[in-house]
Amino acid sequence: MKVGIIMGSQSDLKVMSEAAQVLEDLGVDYELTIVSAHRTPERMFEYATTAKERGLAAIVAGAGGAAHLPGMVASMTSLPVIGVPVKSRNSIDGWDSILSILQMPAGVPVATVALDGAKNAGILAAKIVGATDEKVSKNIEDFMKEMKDKVLTSAESVETEGWKSKI
Amino acid sequence: MKVGIIMGSQSDLKVMSEAAQVLEDLGVDYELTIVSAHRTPERMFEYATTAKERGLAAIVAGAGGAAHLPGMVASMTSLPVIGVPVKSRNSIDGWDSILSILQMPAGVPVATVALDGAKNAGILAAKIVGATDEKVSKNIEDFMKEMKDKVLTSAESVETEGWKSKI
Amino acid sequence: MKVGIIMGSQSDLKVMSEAAQVLEDLGVDYELTIVSAHRTPERMFEYATTAKERGLAAIVAGAGGAAHLPGMVASMTSLPVIGVPVKSRNSIDGWDSILSILQMPAGVPVATVALDGAKNAGILAAKIVGATDEKVSKNIEDFMKEMKDKVLTSAESVETEGWKSKI
Amino acid sequence: MKVGIIMGSQSDLKVMSEAAQVLEDLGVDYELTIVSAHRTPERMFEYATTAKERGLAAIVAGAGGAAHLPGMVASMTSLPVIGVPVKSRNSIDGWDSILSILQMPAGVPVATVALDGAKNAGILAAKIVGATDEKVSKNIEDFMKEMKDKVLTSAESVETEGWKSKI
Amino acid sequence: MKVGIIMGSQSDLKVMSEAAQVLEDLGVDYELTIVSAHRTPERMFEYATTAKERGLAAIVAGAGGAAHLPGMVASMTSLPVIGVPVKSRNSIDGWDSILSILQMPAGVPVATVALDGAKNAGILAAKIVGATDEKVSKNIEDFMKEMKDKVLTSAESVETEGWKSKI
Amino acid sequence: MKVGIIMGSQSDLKVMSEAAQVLEDLGVDYELTIVSAHRTPERMFEYATTAKERGLAAIVAGAGGAAHLPGMVASMTSLPVIGVPVKSRNSIDGWDSILSILQMPAGVPVATVALDGAKNAGILAAKIVGATDEKVSKNIEDFMKEMKDKVLTSAESVETEGWKSKI
Amino acid sequence: MKVGIIMGSQSDLKVMSEAAQVLEDLGVDYELTIVSAHRTPERMFEYATTAKERGLAAIVAGAGGAAHLPGMVASMTSLPVIGVPVKSRNSIDGWDSILSILQMPAGVPVATVALDGAKNAGILAAKIVGATDEKVSKNIEDFMKEMKDKVLTSAESVETEGWKSKI
Amino acid sequence: MKVGIIMGSQSDLKVMSEAAQVLEDLGVDYELTIVSAHRTPERMFEYATTAKERGLAAIVAGAGGAAHLPGMVASMTSLPVIGVPVKSRNSIDGWDSILSILQMPAGVPVATVALDGAKNAGILAAKIVGATDEKVSKNIEDFMKEMKDKVLTSAESVETEGWKSKI
Repeated sequence: MKVGIIMGSQSDLKVMSEAAQVLEDLGVDYELTIVSAHRTPERMFEYATTAKERGLAAIVAGAGGAAHLPGMVASMTSLPVIGVPVKSRNSIDGWDSILSILQMPAGVPVATVALDGAKNAGILAAKIVGATDEKVSKNIEDFMKEMKDKVLTSAESVETEGWKSKI
Repeated sequence: MKVGIIMGSQSDLKVMSEAAQVLEDLGVDYELTIVSAHRTPERMFEYATTAKERGLAAIVAGAGGAAHLPGMVASMTSLPVIGVPVKSRNSIDGWDSILSILQMPAGVPVATVALDGAKNAGILAAKIVGATDEKVSKNIEDFMKEMKDKVLTSAESVETEGWKSKI
Repeated sequence: MKVGIIMGSQSDLKVMSEAAQVLEDLGVDYELTIVSAHRTPERMFEYATTAKERGLAAIVAGAGGAAHLPGMVASMTSLPVIGVPVKSRNSIDGWDSILSILQMPAGVPVATVALDGAKNAGILAAKIVGATDEKVSKNIEDFMKEMKDKVLTSAESVETEGWKSKI
Repeated sequence: MKVGIIMGSQSDLKVMSEAAQVLEDLGVDYELTIVSAHRTPERMFEYATTAKERGLAAIVAGAGGAAHLPGMVASMTSLPVIGVPVKSRNSIDGWDSILSILQMPAGVPVATVALDGAKNAGILAAKIVGATDEKVSKNIEDFMKEMKDKVLTSAESVETEGWKSKI
Repeated sequence: MKVGIIMGSQSDLKVMSEAAQVLEDLGVDYELTIVSAHRTPERMFEYATTAKERGLAAIVAGAGGAAHLPGMVASMTSLPVIGVPVKSRNSIDGWDSILSILQMPAGVPVATVALDGAKNAGILAAKIVGATDEKVSKNIEDFMKEMKDKVLTSAESVETEGWKSKI
Repeated sequence: MKVGIIMGSQSDLKVMSEAAQVLEDLGVDYELTIVSAHRTPERMFEYATTAKERGLAAIVAGAGGAAHLPGMVASMTSLPVIGVPVKSRNSIDGWDSILSILQMPAGVPVATVALDGAKNAGILAAKIVGATDEKVSKNIEDFMKEMKDKVLTSAESVETEGWKSKI
Repeated sequence: MKVGIIMGSQSDLKVMSEAAQVLEDLGVDYELTIVSAHRTPERMFEYATTAKERGLAAIVAGAGGAAHLPGMVASMTSLPVIGVPVKSRNSIDGWDSILSILQMPAGVPVATVALDGAKNAGILAAKIVGATDEKVSKNIEDFMKEMKDKVLTSAESVETEGWKSKI
Repeated sequence: MKVGIIMGSQSDLKVMSEAAQVLEDLGVDYELTIVSAHRTPERMFEYATTAKERGLAAIVAGAGGAAHLPGMVASMTSLPVIGVPVKSRNSIDGWDSILSILQMPAGVPVATVALDGAKNAGILAAKIVGATDEKVSKNIEDFMKEMKDKVLTSAESVETEGWKSKI
């Protein structure tokens, strides 16, 4: 099972590459490309309607502004679609990206993550794969443990050395 | 020249019918139907890509929540597309509808009107038709004069009779 | 594979029952109960940390206001967690529920759906199950086709009978 | 047929010049000048009331803050008016510009585009001209095709060379 | 010295009449009429440019949505203009009215009061008149004393009788 | 030790009485009266500057709109002040009340609770008293246990009887 | 007649000095000092209650965050008070300053200007003085004419030399 | 009596250290460490449930984004909990942090301070300690007097030397 990562423009790559990176870290296969809802609508239709037969388990789609890519893809596949609101250049503090991905009508869900939250989109995709892939599931648990250990280490260091040495 | 009016769901008809009514009042031909971006994406593609050859001069598209219909249609036609943000049942005070119609990326404009502003969308479509149709242009001028006269009458009545008789 | 549905209070049931209903309609097993992050934190810990071993494939968690349930559960399980922002009585138009579910820090994703979007949360859970369960996947496709057919029927009816008979 | 481009202040020129540039690119005649609703109200009246007889087909008006120029001009002409909310220096993240252009009362529409979306305003004006000018219409189609080709090229390049070489 | 009260539409009268009432209560002369920026722009110009010679000391202007009346009037008179953001039917919770009145550019101030705050607009106008009219100034002081006495009475009543008898 | 409860107007009593009620339930003494920052500023000064010597341990202050009471009281006493943003009639969805209580400058804190959250303000005051009063502390713990038991009972009932019997 | 200018902190001086400058330019006397509602409440009381007898005609008060200075001063004087919302360092995009100045309760108006709009506050104060001082009124008219001339010059220059030479 | 200061991540230390510093200045004991709701939920449980027996009088908890730490800790202790909304890197202008800390459900209060208002959180904690510790209470009064003196000095300097020398 593979995860598809798409975004509306190459300028989204800086944010969206975090999804790819975390999937690599968690041992999940993925493909990544650019699909624009507004500039290449036919390509988007093709991508969405063939996603399942091409063996994808989930799709991570990022877009900014009036972000239609995640919702439109979700309307054309039975796969779970994860939407990443990207805070693009002319975005109004990200509210446009968030609301146009989150507020999908009943019947056509998009799993929305935080603004610029591509890493979390990747982890969510891995959790979907991990629902039936024990190895991936184990990797996620290790990842969560690592995060915890980092906090514990930093807590210990602050407690031992005092906060004044840390700022 | 004819104007196309579309909306995502029959529940938008109460708002969107105001566009149809004002076009009738201004003597502009129109067609009206339901096209859902998320429930009938193929139908939307068909509608948008054939709009020009079917003789439409402009398209008025209304939708609520994560409103993708106006922007997606605009991405597939060289006709001007006018978007009406509809304040649907689960909308967050209309902000979702507004932002997902208004904040289109460079290259793919949607002419957005006020929240639930279908009447203005109809007038705007008539103004586009009126750019080359003198009869419609004349009708718009009459309509503007009528609005003005109503205000003048109501101003005179308030001035003459006093505000206390009016509330 | 079963889906767990939890919510912070019985007052959320009116919204959250839509998740249960759609899972029934799509042929997906589920369990539903009440778990409050703020009133029963121990119960929440117990629920989250044992969710996977109890055979759950995904968790749908709904909460309103400062909604901590989805995020806290997500922090204690490797399962995908779907968050439903509920517009509770004292909520500020739902913004509090949305932002406290959506804006999770990197590493701990919650798949957020629209305000009061429990139905979509149920469908999303079904899509996750459907990633490896062909029967559920087929049911989702049928469900999408049904939605489409309803729009086509309503479009035909508006086109044939005219919008004036519909409002 | 010519398009009129106006703005409240020379400081808006950096944003608004994108409308002029895209009209040039699309082969549409235009005139550009400065008209301030609040500093030169008489000039604005003169501009708006004579716009049609001077042969304009549409007006693109940009303004920031409490942006009254597009709406006031729209109240005095039967031509379609396209409003560009400019994010000026003291603007509150652009919300003031957007709402004071978008939320026009019934009867007096302004075709609003995205924040700082002057390029889209220019394209919209070209689409209006293109409704009866086949040459312009053809230029818009070419422009849309070019946008599409750029995305396809960039997609191919990311797919072939991998995302890691692109960030 | 007289105060002018204007509003965009008779539907604003319910809110705006509070300005008239409080001016009567404070012994300040006023005139009240309807002037629409968008439906009767010429009337608005006439009103604003002759306001001073007609003996007005200040103008109270109320409007809703994309509210241009207060700002446009302010651009054409050296009199102080007080703006009342009216929460009209299609207003987005009043934000549009507030921002399009408040956020005037440097050089053209509007004295903005709270949403639907016509009473305060009337008092503000009276304070301006009172700056040189001792009788009005005295009336304002009496009015402030009355408000204070009402609070003191209600405080005493709650303290004496207990809050349980008051709800 | 006693808690002082004040509010700007008797119309706030419906909300603010919840603070009084919960303090009674938790066995904490209190006094309740009306003090308006804007209508009785001298009374507010008197109240704030004598609060400590009158034996108060904390002050709960509720107000709506441009809510200055909590912050002004906090500026004149070394006691902890708890602010309740009240969603008054003309409030803009409560945002005005919240921000004018919450966003106090460095040096003058107000402990802000949720919109209309007078009950929580009362509990917070009890927690402050409970920091040195074991009986009150015990009452708070009992109160927390009760809340928990109610959730457990309702959870059991939903699990046993099924959600369909509950809506 | 003199105008009083006050602000909560010396850090507001950069913004608030624009009020002083424009009053100088318009030939209006003023005094300027620092009065903090939260750090020097007694000083604020003294300032407000003696303002009229000290010969002030209006007060311009600027503050940021939970900005209580303008409203509190307005509650203790019959003079018109003009409030300037200052976008201070920790302000939430200025919304806190705006709402805590604008949304005053009925009976206690503050004439609010745009965010950081101290220049407009100064002009407004001059307009109040100008209501009975012909010289100041004349200066305001000259000021308005100058603004107009600057726009006309800049318009002519753009029209003659073309926009391309201006960016 | 000691105050506990916790935060979700070491990156919050820059903001949160102001709470520690002011507690030192006011002569109040404190401990400071890192506790993450989402990365170390068990540690958070341990911290909260043992806080009282460890002798804490109040807890100051800071977090950003979907900030669950203050509310979750409040749900597991009878101590007063003070929440600091931190404007973290991906925060949406701080709204997410504010709302997910402020809008706690009835029964589980968090004393919320301004965005990044850690200094005020520290003072609030000192005020709670000061309710029964006269020395701390005296320190707070001195601190308030110092703030006042600084304003008076700066006011005098502006009055004496003129504002033009200060910007």
